[in-house]
Amino acid sequence: MATQANSVPHPTLIKVDPFVPADQQKGIHNRWHPDIPAFATVKPGEASGRSIAPTFLVLTFFQVFKIECVDWTGAQIGNNDNSDDVKNVDLTKVHNLSGPIAVEGAEPGDCLVVDILDVQPFEKMPWGYTGIFELNNGGGLFAREFDSKAAKAIWDFHGIYASSRHIPGVRFAGVSHPGLIGTAPSADLLATWNKREGELIAQHPNAVPAVAFAPNAVGSYVGQDLDSKVRQKIAEEGARTIPGREHGGNCDIKNLSKGSRCYFPVFIKGANLSVGDLHFSQGDGELSFCGAIEMAGIITFSTSIIKGGVEKFALKQPIFLACIVFYSIILHSQNFVALSYRPSLFGQGTSLPTAIVFEVKAIDFRSSSRESVSTIVHGDGKQYNMDATVAYKQAALNAIAYLMKIGYTREQAYLLLSAAPIESHVGALVDSPNACVTLAIPTGIFSHDILPKPEGFTKQDFGQCAIRSDGIV
Amino acid sequence: MATQANSVPHPTLIKVDPFVPADQQKGIHNRWHPDIPAFATVKPGEASGRSIAPTFLVLTFFQVFKIECVDWTGAQIGNNDNSDDVKNVDLTKVHNLSGPIAVEGAEPGDCLVVDILDVQPFEKMPWGYTGIFELNNGGGLFAREFDSKAAKAIWDFHGIYASSRHIPGVRFAGVSHPGLIGTAPSADLLATWNKREGELIAQHPNAVPAVAFAPNAVGSYVGQDLDSKVRQKIAEEGARTIPGREHGGNCDIKNLSKGSRCYFPVFIKGANLSVGDLHFSQGDGELSFCGAIEMAGIITFSTSIIKGGVEKFALKQPIFLACIVFYSIILHSQNFVALSYRPSLFGQGTSLPTAIVFEVKAIDFRSSSRESVSTIVHGDGKQYNMDATVAYKQAALNAIAYLMKIGYTREQAYLLLSAAPIESHVGALVDSPNACVTLAIPTGIFSHDILPKPEGFTKQDFGQCAIRSDGIV
Amino acid sequence: MATQANSVPHPTLIKVDPFVPADQQKGIHNRWHPDIPAFATVKPGEASGRSIAPTFLVLTFFQVFKIECVDWTGAQIGNNDNSDDVKNVDLTKVHNLSGPIAVEGAEPGDCLVVDILDVQPFEKMPWGYTGIFELNNGGGLFAREFDSKAAKAIWDFHGIYASSRHIPGVRFAGVSHPGLIGTAPSADLLATWNKREGELIAQHPNAVPAVAFAPNAVGSYVGQDLDSKVRQKIAEEGARTIPGREHGGNCDIKNLSKGSRCYFPVFIKGANLSVGDLHFSQGDGELSFCGAIEMAGIITFSTSIIKGGVEKFALKQPIFLACIVFYSIILHSQNFVALSYRPSLFGQGTSLPTAIVFEVKAIDFRSSSRESVSTIVHGDGKQYNMDATVAYKQAALNAIAYLMKIGYTREQAYLLLSAAPIESHVGALVDSPNACVTLAIPTGIFSHDILPKPEGFTKQDFGQCAIRSDGIV
Amino acid sequence: MATQANSVPHPTLIKVDPFVPADQQKGIHNRWHPDIPAFATVKPGEASGRSIAPTFLVLTFFQVFKIECVDWTGAQIGNNDNSDDVKNVDLTKVHNLSGPIAVEGAEPGDCLVVDILDVQPFEKMPWGYTGIFELNNGGGLFAREFDSKAAKAIWDFHGIYASSRHIPGVRFAGVSHPGLIGTAPSADLLATWNKREGELIAQHPNAVPAVAFAPNAVGSYVGQDLDSKVRQKIAEEGARTIPGREHGGNCDIKNLSKGSRCYFPVFIKGANLSVGDLHFSQGDGELSFCGAIEMAGIITFSTSIIKGGVEKFALKQPIFLACIVFYSIILHSQNFVALSYRPSLFGQGTSLPTAIVFEVKAIDFRSSSRESVSTIVHGDGKQYNMDATVAYKQAALNAIAYLMKIGYTREQAYLLLSAAPIESHVGALVDSPNACVTLAIPTGIFSHDILPKPEGFTKQDFGQCAIRSDGIV
Repeated sequence: MATQANSVPHPTLIKVDPFVPADQQKGIHNRWHPDIPAFATVKPGEASGRSIAPTFLVLTFFQVFKIECVDWTGAQIGNNDNSDDVKNVDLTKVHNLSGPIAVEGAEPGDCLVVDILDVQPFEKMPWGYTGIFELNNGGGLFAREFDSKAAKAIWDFHGIYASSRHIPGVRFAGVSHPGLIGTAPSADLLATWNKREGELIAQHPNAVPAVAFAPNAVGSYVGQDLDSKVRQKIAEEGARTIPGREHGGNCDIKNLSKGSRCYFPVFIKGANLSVGDLHFSQGDGELSFCGAIEMAGIITFSTSIIKGGVEKFALKQPIFLACIVFYSIILHSQNFVALSYRPSLFGQGTSLPTAIVFEVKAIDFRSSSRESVSTIVHGDGKQYNMDATVAYKQAALNAIAYLMKIGYTREQAYLLLSAAPIESHVGALVDSPNACVTLAIPTGIFSHDILPKPEGFTKQDFGQCAIRSDGIV
Repeated sequence: MATQANSVPHPTLIKVDPFVPADQQKGIHNRWHPDIPAFATVKPGEASGRSIAPTFLVLTFFQVFKIECVDWTGAQIGNNDNSDDVKNVDLTKVHNLSGPIAVEGAEPGDCLVVDILDVQPFEKMPWGYTGIFELNNGGGLFAREFDSKAAKAIWDFHGIYASSRHIPGVRFAGVSHPGLIGTAPSADLLATWNKREGELIAQHPNAVPAVAFAPNAVGSYVGQDLDSKVRQKIAEEGARTIPGREHGGNCDIKNLSKGSRCYFPVFIKGANLSVGDLHFSQGDGELSFCGAIEMAGIITFSTSIIKGGVEKFALKQPIFLACIVFYSIILHSQNFVALSYRPSLFGQGTSLPTAIVFEVKAIDFRSSSRESVSTIVHGDGKQYNMDATVAYKQAALNAIAYLMKIGYTREQAYLLLSAAPIESHVGALVDSPNACVTLAIPTGIFSHDILPKPEGFTKQDFGQCAIRSDGIV
Repeated sequence: MATQANSVPHPTLIKVDPFVPADQQKGIHNRWHPDIPAFATVKPGEASGRSIAPTFLVLTFFQVFKIECVDWTGAQIGNNDNSDDVKNVDLTKVHNLSGPIAVEGAEPGDCLVVDILDVQPFEKMPWGYTGIFELNNGGGLFAREFDSKAAKAIWDFHGIYASSRHIPGVRFAGVSHPGLIGTAPSADLLATWNKREGELIAQHPNAVPAVAFAPNAVGSYVGQDLDSKVRQKIAEEGARTIPGREHGGNCDIKNLSKGSRCYFPVFIKGANLSVGDLHFSQGDGELSFCGAIEMAGIITFSTSIIKGGVEKFALKQPIFLACIVFYSIILHSQNFVALSYRPSLFGQGTSLPTAIVFEVKAIDFRSSSRESVSTIVHGDGKQYNMDATVAYKQAALNAIAYLMKIGYTREQAYLLLSAAPIESHVGALVDSPNACVTLAIPTGIFSHDILPKPEGFTKQDFGQCAIRSDGIV
Repeated sequence: MATQANSVPHPTLIKVDPFVPADQQKGIHNRWHPDIPAFATVKPGEASGRSIAPTFLVLTFFQVFKIECVDWTGAQIGNNDNSDDVKNVDLTKVHNLSGPIAVEGAEPGDCLVVDILDVQPFEKMPWGYTGIFELNNGGGLFAREFDSKAAKAIWDFHGIYASSRHIPGVRFAGVSHPGLIGTAPSADLLATWNKREGELIAQHPNAVPAVAFAPNAVGSYVGQDLDSKVRQKIAEEGARTIPGREHGGNCDIKNLSKGSRCYFPVFIKGANLSVGDLHFSQGDGELSFCGAIEMAGIITFSTSIIKGGVEKFALKQPIFLACIVFYSIILHSQNFVALSYRPSLFGQGTSLPTAIVFEVKAIDFRSSSRESVSTIVHGDGKQYNMDATVAYKQAALNAIAYLMKIGYTREQAYLLLSAAPIESHVGALVDSPNACVTLAIPTGIFSHDILPKPEGFTKQDFGQCAIRSDGIV
């Protein structure tokens, strides 16, 4: 008979409350540093005792375990209809990471294999959000072009689907994944990060948004009781969590969903894996910065170790076996009345210049990063030189213009491209001088046919997303 | 800020304990009858109040709700290493259904639209089972050919994956779905069922396994406190749950997974939807009878009504928008070391006769159902006449023979084809006299390449599945 | 420089003219017999001379070759707007097979590996046809239920797509494949076929349509100059081509398209591979008998041999590595304005009885095959016993009724389900007494949304397919 | 009966010989200019005469036509085993375009809809090539990092598959597409191109490889007999074909395959569509410049016009409905013995600096474009600022390092990543300072499992690709 006794659930190694500020909880840290002690330790998977012929791989899932995560801001954003919380978000307290988890036997130079077996929101918190951050508090890909003001969309989860009262007319299945996942850096690696990023910051001292983020003791925490000296060291040296780096970190790979396998380089004894910033869904590019559907939730892992894997696989950065096709097809299979799902490429997105209505100034953004950058943006008609970042931006602007023809506001379109499973491919980077990047919108997520029609579009009124209570957009 | 107050979970309308016998729990019934009162009532989804242009469908998920289900036997099968519980299973107490759920406003002739938004196992019961049932207690597609003795495989769930210590060398992602889902029959429809199935039984009075199952008061329950007369009526008339019928019922559609939409005909006021027999995974054909990975779990629904839908859509039986492609691709995306996933068709499975080593006798199974059927099976070299059932069986026998070349026992192969996401297509039913049915095994679920090789296979030793404690197979 | 000299095209081993009757051409035969000599001989693929490490499979495509095929009737059907040619088709002259091709070194007991590298229509004949055959001349799955009269649809090919002036409102990509492909039988195997099929015919001497087809010298040809005695023997003994059998033959597997690999058992020295009956597209079940989009065209092959493969792989019938997913996805990717492609399951198709408006009589079709069968059909309300053929038929009738709600005629719907890439899965064959078979229509092939809508359908006028010049339908 | 008379092939509007230099053939031009007259004219598709209800789109394929194309170099590269032809290629004579084709009724501001219905190699030329071009004659993404010398791989076509004697151990299906397709620019647009690209060239006067290409009368031709003044004007002003621009042009979108639909802005009366540079297959990024499998072949089109489409769809550049999923899945369905196809992401490719063994110097490539650029490359440990081009390069270098662990030479790996259906996605462009770009290798194209294994790899010997006859690599 099925009984409690013969039914053993997988252990949850870190438990959190998604409604409590992150700095008040155990097991959450928000800086990368080798001196943060492991909060829990697991044994790696090993071969089962069953004796079968050696050519058959023995499948093992020893040490399946779960980790709970708060959302990346640590409960700072609420399920409501204005964006004041986004406007005032405290970015010194991001991204909240659950961990570290030590894996027994992992040594520097090894490869830590991590299987992502599931990613789910908390049952008690069936919603997430996507935010446009202020130019002066977070920014985003078009922060300067749009002179961004805080805005947001709340997404309600209905099983595998999400929809938003702030962006009517769309629904899609989530390809849920961790935005942030990585091993702890060694002291040397951390020093390298701080040095090279510091040099970039020094070159652009007053850039808005900032070009990079230096260590900052303000807002730093480790989720454990530590000797104050150690805590101080971590706070002062710990790398900020915004960028992805050699250890993984803020990967933001939208299809790193359940079923994926990751191969991380190990830099310190135990590897010290941390994870956070769960996304219900994300578009390629995550363009509004807080662009995914941010959520709190639970991730299920198992791990194993490949000794000397860094050398064996030339592992400068992580390798992923991600669910690329799984992802593509979830969208196709959305059996939603009146939805067709055919990806369409909106604009070739070459890096040639295009006049856009939203631009403020007309100087090369990229070159500008060598001077003062506070007021300059793309779109000046200047010819760039094989610049894939510009190409992506042009494709995204073309897509926003297209969605506005249908009736979405600029802010709704910006949020939608960030959160929905947009596909962006690098087409070609060799056809001088124009890089070619494509951005594809899944048409099946809309409740209406958005393909080009002979008669054009009758503009719909979709209202507006959540904006600031002072009404400024 | 994210708070408990602004985070409302979806309600669970029926709560069950997967470790308690089903007949001791509220909200579980195991017969189809119009007089079983609704255990809970929901409002159907309706258009949101937001005013947008009428050509845009308003997406609504009002009344998302959850239903908990015990496994189909009601905790009769345990997580252990012998099959005595399968041998002794009490089949008068199956299938356990959670419900009925009434939908406000549904009337006979309407179409009940049901969205399956999620299907998950209980966190506290991360395992399921597949069983071969005894010839004399349940049977299965090859019960007579194999003179079946009880056997089983326990599957452990690791997030989206399942593997079994009883069938080493395979792992696959579950395409979880409800085996049983349907609306309540009207009194007339119930009478029709009982009449026509009674006639078939009368034609084959001593068939083993039985050709159909008459109403049986023994083992019947309704999960509610009812007047004893009503309960008696239900027990005596209630249709058994084994077959699918006009209302849905035991659909066993392996890809009716999360994201699917069902359109059921409504036969009584309120529609009275019931659901149960959740499957973590199932192969097309579900050949060992208890062939899916049977599990207890939670299903998430939303519903709406299309008035007069039976006439509008010529709805003799349910219509489904199932996740066919989602299903196919989950398997493809299984990023498992050393696994390749390419479906391969094992045998054409035409209904022409093939001598098989397992056969006991050699007479037409189908015609046999008109006489005594206890000892006769397929495989006699007789030419059938456009018989797709025989074609499927031949394809399955070819596949079992192939898997035995690799090293699996007959019982392991039989269980594996039942539980893994096998694809079986009807090729052609017009090329007299042979029906053509194909059966495809996903090669990517194996930890070893099972494709044909010039050198043939070196037979592996995979042990055996769980068998009876008396050792009889 | 690219030159004729360094550009060697693949050889075409059999050349035919699609506009000339098949019995007037070389290299075409229409019976299966071991004594038909090889028309051409190829060397099997072997390892290239390049020395690389042995764990790497050496990929070789030696002996890539092409075979041209007439359509299955040998030019009997024309591109016009009535169905008189279908009414009067001479079925003694089908199916036309190009071959045989001997493979050097193949011996009985070996496995012949055949790669299908491409399938294309003739450039000069960019069209095909689907036919409903007369009850008395060919039949089809519903020949008796519908008392079928000749009808047809001509399909025009536009690159990868087909559309028909006789069935407006649909377009789809072809998953082109050979309907017929197989090795030659041995004399023993041929004798077995003739014996067992003869017995079935003897049981149903006057069945209409016939339950099977005995050898028939009338209309037989071999495409070679042969000694008259040999030719006579072949004509008198040669197996008819309608059914699939142990050697392959009329497989009608709709996704056996380019990229597929086949493993055939070899029965005679040289294997003697033949191929024909090319299909531009076909639905699972091919229900109208001439149900695929029949075409003339060119198929590209390469071959190799696995010695002793019959024993190594328990090869009772061919094994295929077919492009199942390729197939599914071609349809999804049809980027056609206003088309959505989501497979939907129309009816559960259980083998329970359903009253249908088209039925003429009401007796068990299956049991009827033991008596006179000329006037009896399914749909009598009788309970069948695990009959997958009936289940498929019920699902198909449900789908036809649905399409008629939209506005198609019964004949158009019947042809469309036969020719378009319909998916039919065996759901479950163990839920006594009802078999469960599903049939899915790809919604994306329609120029209009055919999903169920709250308001039902406004019936369109699509005209009618090509019918007999006497106007009888 | 099927006859020549009732079988009308689609017309071929431009016929070429793939073995004759392009400048000696009619209908081939190699510059973009509004004054090149239409070589042929087609009528756009229009609604068929059949009267059906207006809500149903009438599907029409009027004016299906074919265009033949030489390879992009016009037969300069041969099917042989050294790369001297690549070394000495005359790049003034590329890319060869077939056209222009005028579409009746197209006016500036309209949208030209082009359906790509098929793309096939010439039957008489079943091979293509991928080239690494010299640093001083063409370049490529790593021309400076690798100090590139000419190298190449010849690919043999076997139906849908390609394999290469110069890169053993891989085989894949082609997703064939046109590299170059576009409408003719207006005089104004052409002037804009020449001005802005001229300014970039002026900023980098001696860059090697060149940052852009100015009009050049040398090597220019138009494929028609023209007044010498007009021809002179075209030669002197005509835009070079290397980059993609507002009209389409060198799109290099690897999945713009058969079944795709394109929406081009129209700039001159008649639209004047041209096409060329057919690719049998290409990887995202096309990194070695001549990175696709370049081929000569035939493309099948149909066209229609949407009046005023530029305004209706905010059409700054073309929009595509490309076969994204079709593409992904072709690969998955490659039923090749011992191949598993699971995309794996090699390296996150963030734009952070990584020391690589191949680097020559260590200065910012991007900034270098403002100074002399002849000797400077990436990989200096410098921190870039949100640079997706650098991120892509890092991911590609990680992938090359990985493939070299298996045994491929650097040149083989470089060619393979260029030609095989590699997937590169933009992950995130907002995580300052590091852009995140992923590059995925389809593992199923290899004849051997290339996934990471506990024991690492045993390096294979795959020889080398075709190199210069002087042996310099």
